[in-house]
Amino acid sequence: MKRAASGKPTGRASATSSNSVKGVPVSSVLNAGLIGAGRIGRLHASNLAHHIPRARLVAVADVVEEAARQSAAEHGIPKAVADYRVLLDDADVQAVVICSATDTHAQIIEEAAQAGKHIFCEKPIDLTLERIDTALAAVDRRGVVFQIGLNRRFDANFRRVRQAVEQGEIGRPWQLHIVSRDPLPPPLAYVKVSGGLFLDMAIHDFDMARFLIGSEVEEVYAAAGVLVDEAIGALGDVDTAVTILKFANGAIGTIDNSRSAVYGYDQRVEILGSGGMISTDNNFPNSAVISDGRAVHRDLPLNFFMERYTQSYLAEMTAFVDAVLDGGTPPVTGVDGRLAVVLALAAQKSFRENRPVRVSEVDLSRD
Amino acid sequence: MKRAASGKPTGRASATSSNSVKGVPVSSVLNAGLIGAGRIGRLHASNLAHHIPRARLVAVADVVEEAARQSAAEHGIPKAVADYRVLLDDADVQAVVICSATDTHAQIIEEAAQAGKHIFCEKPIDLTLERIDTALAAVDRRGVVFQIGLNRRFDANFRRVRQAVEQGEIGRPWQLHIVSRDPLPPPLAYVKVSGGLFLDMAIHDFDMARFLIGSEVEEVYAAAGVLVDEAIGALGDVDTAVTILKFANGAIGTIDNSRSAVYGYDQRVEILGSGGMISTDNNFPNSAVISDGRAVHRDLPLNFFMERYTQSYLAEMTAFVDAVLDGGTPPVTGVDGRLAVVLALAAQKSFRENRPVRVSEVDLSRD
Amino acid sequence: MKRAASGKPTGRASATSSNSVKGVPVSSVLNAGLIGAGRIGRLHASNLAHHIPRARLVAVADVVEEAARQSAAEHGIPKAVADYRVLLDDADVQAVVICSATDTHAQIIEEAAQAGKHIFCEKPIDLTLERIDTALAAVDRRGVVFQIGLNRRFDANFRRVRQAVEQGEIGRPWQLHIVSRDPLPPPLAYVKVSGGLFLDMAIHDFDMARFLIGSEVEEVYAAAGVLVDEAIGALGDVDTAVTILKFANGAIGTIDNSRSAVYGYDQRVEILGSGGMISTDNNFPNSAVISDGRAVHRDLPLNFFMERYTQSYLAEMTAFVDAVLDGGTPPVTGVDGRLAVVLALAAQKSFRENRPVRVSEVDLSRD
Amino acid sequence: MKRAASGKPTGRASATSSNSVKGVPVSSVLNAGLIGAGRIGRLHASNLAHHIPRARLVAVADVVEEAARQSAAEHGIPKAVADYRVLLDDADVQAVVICSATDTHAQIIEEAAQAGKHIFCEKPIDLTLERIDTALAAVDRRGVVFQIGLNRRFDANFRRVRQAVEQGEIGRPWQLHIVSRDPLPPPLAYVKVSGGLFLDMAIHDFDMARFLIGSEVEEVYAAAGVLVDEAIGALGDVDTAVTILKFANGAIGTIDNSRSAVYGYDQRVEILGSGGMISTDNNFPNSAVISDGRAVHRDLPLNFFMERYTQSYLAEMTAFVDAVLDGGTPPVTGVDGRLAVVLALAAQKSFRENRPVRVSEVDLSRD
Repeated sequence: MKRAASGKPTGRASATSSNSVKGVPVSSVLNAGLIGAGRIGRLHASNLAHHIPRARLVAVADVVEEAARQSAAEHGIPKAVADYRVLLDDADVQAVVICSATDTHAQIIEEAAQAGKHIFCEKPIDLTLERIDTALAAVDRRGVVFQIGLNRRFDANFRRVRQAVEQGEIGRPWQLHIVSRDPLPPPLAYVKVSGGLFLDMAIHDFDMARFLIGSEVEEVYAAAGVLVDEAIGALGDVDTAVTILKFANGAIGTIDNSRSAVYGYDQRVEILGSGGMISTDNNFPNSAVISDGRAVHRDLPLNFFMERYTQSYLAEMTAFVDAVLDGGTPPVTGVDGRLAVVLALAAQKSFRENRPVRVSEVDLSRD
Repeated sequence: MKRAASGKPTGRASATSSNSVKGVPVSSVLNAGLIGAGRIGRLHASNLAHHIPRARLVAVADVVEEAARQSAAEHGIPKAVADYRVLLDDADVQAVVICSATDTHAQIIEEAAQAGKHIFCEKPIDLTLERIDTALAAVDRRGVVFQIGLNRRFDANFRRVRQAVEQGEIGRPWQLHIVSRDPLPPPLAYVKVSGGLFLDMAIHDFDMARFLIGSEVEEVYAAAGVLVDEAIGALGDVDTAVTILKFANGAIGTIDNSRSAVYGYDQRVEILGSGGMISTDNNFPNSAVISDGRAVHRDLPLNFFMERYTQSYLAEMTAFVDAVLDGGTPPVTGVDGRLAVVLALAAQKSFRENRPVRVSEVDLSRD
Repeated sequence: MKRAASGKPTGRASATSSNSVKGVPVSSVLNAGLIGAGRIGRLHASNLAHHIPRARLVAVADVVEEAARQSAAEHGIPKAVADYRVLLDDADVQAVVICSATDTHAQIIEEAAQAGKHIFCEKPIDLTLERIDTALAAVDRRGVVFQIGLNRRFDANFRRVRQAVEQGEIGRPWQLHIVSRDPLPPPLAYVKVSGGLFLDMAIHDFDMARFLIGSEVEEVYAAAGVLVDEAIGALGDVDTAVTILKFANGAIGTIDNSRSAVYGYDQRVEILGSGGMISTDNNFPNSAVISDGRAVHRDLPLNFFMERYTQSYLAEMTAFVDAVLDGGTPPVTGVDGRLAVVLALAAQKSFRENRPVRVSEVDLSRD
Repeated sequence: MKRAASGKPTGRASATSSNSVKGVPVSSVLNAGLIGAGRIGRLHASNLAHHIPRARLVAVADVVEEAARQSAAEHGIPKAVADYRVLLDDADVQAVVICSATDTHAQIIEEAAQAGKHIFCEKPIDLTLERIDTALAAVDRRGVVFQIGLNRRFDANFRRVRQAVEQGEIGRPWQLHIVSRDPLPPPLAYVKVSGGLFLDMAIHDFDMARFLIGSEVEEVYAAAGVLVDEAIGALGDVDTAVTILKFANGAIGTIDNSRSAVYGYDQRVEILGSGGMISTDNNFPNSAVISDGRAVHRDLPLNFFMERYTQSYLAEMTAFVDAVLDGGTPPVTGVDGRLAVVLALAAQKSFRENRPVRVSEVDLSRD
């Protein structure tokens, strides 16, 4: 997805002060509106309201208006509404942070772009490539800044791995292994609409694979099953998956996904290269180790994404704010968001047909 | 230091709304004034201004008025002055955070207490017991909340150790070992006025020893020398010290202090008990481990206190704000601050006379 | 491979003293003959001669007679010959340890069984199922003890993992990940005759997978390539492989193989189960960790199999001697040796045809 | 202890073949006699009989003749007697390994030296300097090889630390910390005759301190108490001790000793130097780590010295055999054995008088 070269106004602070998108005033602080005040929305609200000095949260929308109001009260947000279109019509809102249900993302992206708002959108953009492409085309047309919420790229551990690959600390990458396990399965109600393990959970790992190796995936093979909870299987989804990725540079990767890990959130990567290996561990609440009469033990790792990725959520939003105000390229683009979905769809197809699937089978643009 | 039972007004939010200290209105947000805008002062300013929702920084004073103004500009503090007494006279200021030079602490504490301000003071209260006792008596007379900045008690690793001792996870404590090393020596100008290694650096470890073991130290023996930098010795100070602590409960502790550790800030503790051992490691910027052709290695630990204790500085100030607003006892009291100095003085005396020193030799009140 | 129920004499010490196989006398010490005095042969010779009190090495054969003589001199072995048949004809030799070239294994097994000798044979039995089945049938007919040299089952780390699975410490196993990397590729001369990465190197890992999970593999998919050395590719082999294993119990496993790891021999496993995860690390020459001005580092892991598996080689041979003398079942049977080859052949086929391969496609007996 | 320069025959294999001490024939294999077949004696017997190709165990003596006979039967030793003098009179015995009760060491050393036998003696030589000096003088007069059983110097972890200090990997050493804890107290019967914690247990650590730092200790201060078991105190001994060591090179060390560590044998060291820090961990039976619903845990460290120091016992005896046969200096001399006792006596005196004690107060030869 090339950014259009048409010289469209982008409303960034780095532009001259007369620049604007749809009348949004340029300033050194970004006025943001939050769309969707669920769990992840409240997390972004807290960061925007309290921890990012260059951002201000000026409005919040949630279809459950009471949720919007609570969020507004908690974080001192001046405006709380049910309809996100109110934010799109608000000249004070320079950027929107989309945290609503997945099936609304593409529609809101299109409207927000049309309204000249810069956009931060939670992953995935959509579950179909058609809708993704339409939404990204709208973004492109208006030239607004667009960042997708693949926050793990901002995690200190994974950034260090990326740095090692980039700087040649481990030579050319040969093998990648990603472990990505949730402490426990999501509610069945969520499983029904999430798009399934590959599209809702492994999508982060597909992006991580591309990010870490720095080469595109050409073929995937996925083995999966229902080992954790038969109710998940009854809904047509799997809860355990292992995916092999073949990269254009010859590297081969594996991803271990599980909906259940009794010891907590398990998020690790390891890369073997011609010059060495790099591997990361989970994050822990403290470093204390107890040796007693039975074992040498320590506390369990941080339990789930809210604890483990606290800093990466803050860092990604800071990067978005900086990209809008300073005019840099956002570090995770619409193309990144699209390709994560492409790989998830290919893995899903591979599992269903029990055969290796070329990515170009799913993404015709890659032939 | 018993809190006076005289029913003096304390100005805490938990009191009835008509309660006040010197006219300071009770509210759910604490208006704080910062005295001293040096390195540690700016850190507290950032926390009070941005990361503690229940606090508001309403004024800052620094003898270098430009420093106060810069701080005010950076954090949006309405008032910046050179003379701290302006803050003591300001009815809007409910509490002061004292980060000025050590030799001003006792004087400011007395005046602030007299003015009915609640007080958070950086360690040490003073380098002499006489001045400490005078200052704490002033605090006691007015019944204001007083917390001393022994922030390491709020570190997640050390809290976990304390928890293990309290909950009997390692049985009765028998041996304690504290490692406390700075990455590099302070400027010689600081060495001249700091009171020396025991009073300026080891003081944190003396407090940690009392905190972790939960028993008072009765005797100390300190061995020390000048191994790092002869210039430090030329100023009459040491740069390397090992101190043995004998606790009332029979436990024996050691503290390893050094002004220099090329690998960074080294802050670890270990306790052996009748039921097991607990030990902590340093904190690292990431968990990545690289195995290459020469070694298995990881990045150095966080370099110094600003990085290592980021969270503990925030937690201690939050605790202070909560103690004032909610009326609980502050978690680190004036007595704690005083005893840390007592132990430092005893260690200094032990080193100079090369003999074990009873704490009661230094602190006559303990006979 | 069921042991024949025909009451054939087994010559084990647990039998009455009149029992014998082909005149081999029963005693409390096993007289062994070594066939093949190459690297692995010399290792077994040292163990049998010096470290297994119940064994005695009474003869050694090597097609290079000088190698046999050197071995004999080094370990005080009375007889050294070029022709292994001399050992098979020697009534003093109760058991043979076959360490000759792979393509001689099946033939020697047949002849040794025919001669009533108990047999320890290095892996693999052969590279074709036909020859394996013929050899094992000969073993079966004579009822001699047969153990295959899949030594890693005796490694303390992997035994602990097996124990955890058996005792339910991690619940039902869901995901297995094996890392198995050599420090550097074998000589090209060896690559030519070894049967390739899957049959020569990964074979250990296929056995480990069966051993650890305790369930049979039903389907494999292998991705592989030439990343380390193009000369290996020119010989028709690969140097990098990732294999997915689907087990009968639903578990899914992956094996990461590489012919090169600059940091040394990399041998680790990890299993996720319904009740937890178990993972092992490499073995190191010491536990010393150095923190200097650049990194926190430790020495590289033990470099290769002779160092890493020293104890497991001794343990497997001790187990063989005990099985013969005491009459227990050998802990790694001919069936285990056969199935490791079956899985290697299936992985090879999967790689060549780039599709999942049912194990029953390769091993018709499993339909 | 200087080796006498008188050209006395030493009977080492490296000398010309006509050389002999008291008629002991020179050969490439050392004929050794074991004196004392208790626990440590049996360990050395197993090593000499089975694992050191250049040694042969030709006789064993124990005051309990049945113990000598059992040992002989177990290891195929030709001669078993009650009276060690039989070994001293046996021309076939070139060296004796003294593992009898501590109070017999000095006497046997003198007689063995007189008989021209090379001597390996378990620590301590004796509990009094007078007897030690007499015994070492006898050794010196005859010029026999003498090695003391301070086996920990041969441990892979501690050797690596020594190497780091010697090669400057951590610069000049500044601080040393030794942790040395037994899993549980010895029988009270042993406590009565052992000489006490400093002479029986900490003696290893005093030697380790000298070995690692490579500088002599000039002053010690010991704090100690009875925390583990009052019955130990009732016998006049302590069960918990912390000792400070001041080295000639300015370094300062601490030793943590405890008679009880519920998690097993705790044997670790750490050195801070001008260029870095090195620290070692305990040894574990395996590297497996289990993460379950409660904790991340691993098995306890190897429980006691027989398991932890298996390799170091073998290495020290191999070094002794090599020193005798090849003529090198034994790696742990009589002087080392003597100085370990000197430091133990100084620590004991320091504890009893609760003051720092100069080593020269105990060892008049050091003035």
